[in-house]
Amino acid sequence: MKQLMQQEIHLANRPKGMPAKEDFTFVKNSVPSPKVNEILVRTLYLSVDPYMRGRMQDAKSYIAPFELNKVISGGVVAEVVESQSDAFKQGDVVVGNLGWAEYSVATPNEIRKIDPKMAPISTHLGILGMTGLTAYFGLLDIGKPQEGETVVVSGAAGAVGSVVGQIAKIKGAKVVGIAGSDEKIDYLLNVLGFDAAVNYKKDSFWTDLKNSVPDGVDVYFDNVGGDVSDAVFTMLNRNARIPLCGSISSYNAEGNDTGPRIQSAMIKTSAMMQGFTLGDFATDFERGFTDLGKWLLQGKLKYEETIVDGFENTPEAFLGLFKGTNLGKQLVKVANPEYAKL
Amino acid sequence: MKQLMQQEIHLANRPKGMPAKEDFTFVKNSVPSPKVNEILVRTLYLSVDPYMRGRMQDAKSYIAPFELNKVISGGVVAEVVESQSDAFKQGDVVVGNLGWAEYSVATPNEIRKIDPKMAPISTHLGILGMTGLTAYFGLLDIGKPQEGETVVVSGAAGAVGSVVGQIAKIKGAKVVGIAGSDEKIDYLLNVLGFDAAVNYKKDSFWTDLKNSVPDGVDVYFDNVGGDVSDAVFTMLNRNARIPLCGSISSYNAEGNDTGPRIQSAMIKTSAMMQGFTLGDFATDFERGFTDLGKWLLQGKLKYEETIVDGFENTPEAFLGLFKGTNLGKQLVKVANPEYAKL
Repeated sequence: MKQLMQQEIHLANRPKGMPAKEDFTFVKNSVPSPKVNEILVRTLYLSVDPYMRGRMQDAKSYIAPFELNKVISGGVVAEVVESQSDAFKQGDVVVGNLGWAEYSVATPNEIRKIDPKMAPISTHLGILGMTGLTAYFGLLDIGKPQEGETVVVSGAAGAVGSVVGQIAKIKGAKVVGIAGSDEKIDYLLNVLGFDAAVNYKKDSFWTDLKNSVPDGVDVYFDNVGGDVSDAVFTMLNRNARIPLCGSISSYNAEGNDTGPRIQSAMIKTSAMMQGFTLGDFATDFERGFTDLGKWLLQGKLKYEETIVDGFENTPEAFLGLFKGTNLGKQLVKVANPEYAKL
Repeated sequence: MKQLMQQEIHLANRPKGMPAKEDFTFVKNSVPSPKVNEILVRTLYLSVDPYMRGRMQDAKSYIAPFELNKVISGGVVAEVVESQSDAFKQGDVVVGNLGWAEYSVATPNEIRKIDPKMAPISTHLGILGMTGLTAYFGLLDIGKPQEGETVVVSGAAGAVGSVVGQIAKIKGAKVVGIAGSDEKIDYLLNVLGFDAAVNYKKDSFWTDLKNSVPDGVDVYFDNVGGDVSDAVFTMLNRNARIPLCGSISSYNAEGNDTGPRIQSAMIKTSAMMQGFTLGDFATDFERGFTDLGKWLLQGKLKYEETIVDGFENTPEAFLGLFKGTNLGKQLVKVANPEYAKL
């Protein structure tokens, strides 16, 4: 009997500075067979996310590092090919944290069935998935924007930032986005309806930002860190709230990430800063799913996906995150469904 | 009729860097007469505090700057000399925010009567006053130490820090103090009963601190900022809380106050940092007074005062704060009471 072959992607080195294609190895092996209570799934879409850069280092964090010469893992939407579990059947579409691989074997608690009729299945890796929930809880449970307040979000055209800004608009706040290209600025203003948007790559960034927040900053949802955030920290209002979601500007920095210390500004304004990851809200996901799904169906949430075609292009898609080539959620389309009916 | 004369201290310049005696002017004028509903008081003790350095700059903050060539103000304990208000009578001892002056005229809502039998009257400028309340609310309402957790406090031998550590002990936490002399370290360990104390002026500071927090840091009460805090930020536990009370290391810095950006560390640990000033808790002072008074009477709170004698030495007492010459609360004794019975 002929053995079906597949490919998976291993971490070959712990990158120093900006990762390169050489840090990833494609490994060919045979498609595994599911044992009792296991499910064989075929990857349809996989998600590449900035936080994965942190897992490539061997450092203590909220999540274990990727192991060298083992398969990298992340969010995956897949179809069930063969099920040895009563909970799943061939053709089911599922989402889970699985390997960067064409096929995976999962246990029932590693995957969750999704309804392909509700929204495009790829949205379960974005606006209805981890990135949507991250935006939801960080903004609402930490940032707590009030009607009429000014919310600034960095990485505003990215997967998380674009959802943050839209939820802030739903809550009646004035929303200012920070992004890095004229195309993104145009998207924020004219597609997502942000009140203002500022290009941090322009020499006039500091002044542009200052002019876009005449009433100061009440909530700063920080996806990027670095000197973009240094600027925002000088414009905080009393009792400002700062959900810290990411610090992409520093992920590939080889030297020290240094800048102005912020304690004095925070004392003067009684500001609050809270680092978080989605896991902090694990017991509350249902509330997030419900609201995001409702707003999506009501047409109140728009989203953009940047989809790279072909499993072999996964490393490039990941590397593109740090060059800002993506608008909205960056995904890789790995295969068309064979069994699932979309 | 001979007019009684007095002195007061004006801000002569907005200091650049470390303030000097030349930034203060002693002005002689006549003791004012209270009008209807006013009270003439004579200063017995006055408080000098690090936050006053901020008010010497002409910058937006939580409190208005001192005006040039006007009397500086701060916490004062005084006795009533002459009252045109039914609410006060000669010999009452009062506390309030009044001028750096030998005599002041106050309205009834600017001063509060204190009971000279409860505790030495000077404590109302320290452990039973602004500094005690600052420690109380910052630690308990922001830091929220739990039994068995590790609390680190910088400026630990100062007026606020020494109270923070003792309250943390009352709450069952393990307490580590950071201070700048062997005498202070000895005081923290052997008088206040801290579990560990580390001298930040030693070359081994980083290692000493690391060794003193084997279980990591759950609460960091920050009075100093700068590279002392940079070190603590690398030792945070998951869900660490950081009440930001002061940043004395930066108050006299002329250049930029720069250091490692802390966002990545805070995201990895889901840490929370909250700037605050005592005014944020104004509606809740009664709870703080009650607990502090109770603990003081129960002998659970100790305090130290560094008292400089003589109104003419007020500027030196203030400048000493930035050289770390004080143990506990720095006060100036201005006069012995003439009318009050202590």
